[in-house]
Amino acid sequence: MMSVSNAQATPSIQICRIMRPDDANIIGNVHGGTILKMIEEAGCIIGTRHCNTQHGDRCVAALARVERTDFLYPMFIGEVAHASAEITYTSKHSVEVQVNVLSENIVTGAKKVTNKAALWYVPLSLQNVDKIIEVPPIEYCGPEQEEAGKKRYEAQKLDRLETKERNGEVITHVSLPEPYTVGFSQSSLIHLVGPSDCTLHGFVHGGVTMKLMDEVAGIVAARHCKTNIVTASVDAINFHRKIKKGCVITVSGRMTFTSNKSMEIEVFVDADPLVEVEKGKYRAVTAFFTYISLDKDSKPLPVPPLKMEGEEEQKRFEEGKARYLQNKAKRLTDKERQQ
Amino acid sequence: MMSVSNAQATPSIQICRIMRPDDANIIGNVHGGTILKMIEEAGCIIGTRHCNTQHGDRCVAALARVERTDFLYPMFIGEVAHASAEITYTSKHSVEVQVNVLSENIVTGAKKVTNKAALWYVPLSLQNVDKIIEVPPIEYCGPEQEEAGKKRYEAQKLDRLETKERNGEVITHVSLPEPYTVGFSQSSLIHLVGPSDCTLHGFVHGGVTMKLMDEVAGIVAARHCKTNIVTASVDAINFHRKIKKGCVITVSGRMTFTSNKSMEIEVFVDADPLVEVEKGKYRAVTAFFTYISLDKDSKPLPVPPLKMEGEEEQKRFEEGKARYLQNKAKRLTDKERQQ
Amino acid sequence: MMSVSNAQATPSIQICRIMRPDDANIIGNVHGGTILKMIEEAGCIIGTRHCNTQHGDRCVAALARVERTDFLYPMFIGEVAHASAEITYTSKHSVEVQVNVLSENIVTGAKKVTNKAALWYVPLSLQNVDKIIEVPPIEYCGPEQEEAGKKRYEAQKLDRLETKERNGEVITHVSLPEPYTVGFSQSSLIHLVGPSDCTLHGFVHGGVTMKLMDEVAGIVAARHCKTNIVTASVDAINFHRKIKKGCVITVSGRMTFTSNKSMEIEVFVDADPLVEVEKGKYRAVTAFFTYISLDKDSKPLPVPPLKMEGEEEQKRFEEGKARYLQNKAKRLTDKERQQ
Repeated sequence: MMSVSNAQATPSIQICRIMRPDDANIIGNVHGGTILKMIEEAGCIIGTRHCNTQHGDRCVAALARVERTDFLYPMFIGEVAHASAEITYTSKHSVEVQVNVLSENIVTGAKKVTNKAALWYVPLSLQNVDKIIEVPPIEYCGPEQEEAGKKRYEAQKLDRLETKERNGEVITHVSLPEPYTVGFSQSSLIHLVGPSDCTLHGFVHGGVTMKLMDEVAGIVAARHCKTNIVTASVDAINFHRKIKKGCVITVSGRMTFTSNKSMEIEVFVDADPLVEVEKGKYRAVTAFFTYISLDKDSKPLPVPPLKMEGEEEQKRFEEGKARYLQNKAKRLTDKERQQ
Repeated sequence: MMSVSNAQATPSIQICRIMRPDDANIIGNVHGGTILKMIEEAGCIIGTRHCNTQHGDRCVAALARVERTDFLYPMFIGEVAHASAEITYTSKHSVEVQVNVLSENIVTGAKKVTNKAALWYVPLSLQNVDKIIEVPPIEYCGPEQEEAGKKRYEAQKLDRLETKERNGEVITHVSLPEPYTVGFSQSSLIHLVGPSDCTLHGFVHGGVTMKLMDEVAGIVAARHCKTNIVTASVDAINFHRKIKKGCVITVSGRMTFTSNKSMEIEVFVDADPLVEVEKGKYRAVTAFFTYISLDKDSKPLPVPPLKMEGEEEQKRFEEGKARYLQNKAKRLTDKERQQ
Repeated sequence: MMSVSNAQATPSIQICRIMRPDDANIIGNVHGGTILKMIEEAGCIIGTRHCNTQHGDRCVAALARVERTDFLYPMFIGEVAHASAEITYTSKHSVEVQVNVLSENIVTGAKKVTNKAALWYVPLSLQNVDKIIEVPPIEYCGPEQEEAGKKRYEAQKLDRLETKERNGEVITHVSLPEPYTVGFSQSSLIHLVGPSDCTLHGFVHGGVTMKLMDEVAGIVAARHCKTNIVTASVDAINFHRKIKKGCVITVSGRMTFTSNKSMEIEVFVDADPLVEVEKGKYRAVTAFFTYISLDKDSKPLPVPPLKMEGEEEQKRFEEGKARYLQNKAKRLTDKERQQ
């Protein structure tokens, strides 16, 4: 029988790895998100493997739903996390995977079950990722197992329909800004400073801050002109205050000026000591990034002009224009000197 | 002579590495931020090495300023980026490092200078990172070199003083919300989807999305209670729509409910196709995360109660309370069944 | 009996994960270094777990040596790499771990054994990382197993002593070299050791070092033959000295030998304690990597012959040729034995 060979081909999978400093907070507790990511990797492997054990289109298992998950015990840096996954139910178009997570202290030998999760996958055809293909059935130990699985399937189906209709509102946007205005492209990101971002002595490498600043500036530029954009230059950046481990940094960018072929974006970095609250939030760095827009052959494209609203934006635009003209003049002088 | 041995000990340094898919945008152009991070790593190594070539406190070189930097040519995935750094000036308390970046196509052999940067470092004592120590002097080829360096030093000093006084305003906050309100802890991050976030077929792994959701929820929880917080549970999550490569995702979180020992945070994921604009921004996922606060011995701490403002927040709090009581009842039933 | 419970406690471990774009080169072939890092993670987990199955000091297993490893087939992005490790011999102070690596295409279901590796670990006390503790013995299936293990142990011990004395000089660039010479392709990178590179006790994971070595060797090979190159094998690597957190490591590679279809690259790892300068720079690891060049259909291409300059290079070429012929003879003998 076919389903027997399927069951043999995809019985279970085990993923494990040592928890590193970047997987955890400064106290050493592993982030829940690290565990959720491991759980999903195990589920994706076993789901994709199972749905390809038949003739027909090749496919990939896409996550459709995760059931409620409890984190029973915290995990720590240096422990090994084991995630073992098995397929527990299949409907015509979906696969249920159950994953157990165990923490192992390889020094003391202590083991604990820290999580149990149930995930639902849907196989998408590789020829056409909008097409859902059929799932080969698994074989159950008995009719009770199949019956219980069917109940879980019906329950999650109902819940998915319900939440699809309930539509949460977007949090931050009050009114939608018009394209090409400053408000339209302005962006900000927050980043929790992790161990790999820091020197051995617990403050953020300047290079890490600059990388985040460039990331935000790039998103602002791409939102403005919807093309392939690259960094053309960065104005002098001063690092007035150190940023310490355990801070959250908010990096915000807004467009200040556009010439025919370039955009200037002002970027702010604010540090917020999450735990040492008495220190308060402070402005750590600011800088101006210049971006250009490129076509397929890496040739510069024209940039849509920035629409200003209000005096403030107009003033910043004029200041940006002054910087632009000054740099242009300087480049010309430098060229002449070299000749 | 001491300065001779210094000059020999820290003449220059070269960093190189292959540019990977995660270093670049979807077109294959390496992010300016990747290059800036490499430049700073080279500067930090040579600066730290130089400032430790003397007796006295051990120290680490902290970035104080980067001069204006131009990106002359784009770099591509698969090329090797070389950053070579040398110390070009020292004042009593600071070090100037000049870095040249070269791109090398190791297949065709083509090489291009893509960047030149000048960075200023200040040595901080490892005993007390708020103390700046003295810099051992370097030896110059001639008096003109020293004179030119001194001019650069004076110019940057002036500019640093000026920008310190000019204080950019914070972008997003209109009025500062009161502690323990929803507005106080609410947070959002944006993330540009990179190749490592995606399946081979170009859409984001569910696990990557869940990790970002947990990161935002954790920042909301930490901002609310200023302690060590850990994920206790995640409610069912439905993934209604795929997120594609090249999207920017905005992940936003707000606190909806607090019990004596737990906090519930609602998290939204919105996807914004940066280039295929006609598709528009859409809500991809929503979920509820529950966090608890722990003391040094991993025991639960009381959570400060959430202050509601307005009917909307009150309504969400009641809904959160209903979910909390329902889960509590379910846990009790499950326990009884197991006995 | 104690050894029985050990055997039960540490039978084997399986690590697996999906290969991502950053694990591979631009053609999609997974870097040998990615595989070496996974192999070492599996070895470190099972070694540490085993050495703690007794009373006395808690300890961590530190990598002392990797036996010669062949890469039988290239692996690709999207495939799942499985590394399974088991302990096959214990002496008083060391543990032998054998690791098999399997590639699985979860879409087609195809599986291939891609590597077999043998690693030697030494347990270091957590109280004092310079103290080596005793290893609990394992139970063997029969006296032949134990005898064969003892022979492998004696052979590697001898080889470790020999390579400890052999001292490679540090590589330096003199003038712009001609194509196909040793000087033309020789390369080096430096890496500042960060927290995620290290064990909980502050020294670099062996796998991290091997990944960097493979990266440099790959750059040397690509510069020489300007094509898609992959790791074919790694000669035995001895880890003579630990590398600590806060070091800068310089990894240098130079080509020593070419046959018609392969290149041998010698790689050196030098550690430089950036802050504790009095300790001085030291040679931590050396090894030989063999690379082959592949066309679009993953078939081997001819390799341009290496041009030698001077007696030193000629001597190293002859030594490389001897190693090449010895390995070729060994492969033939192994094949005949299996028939």
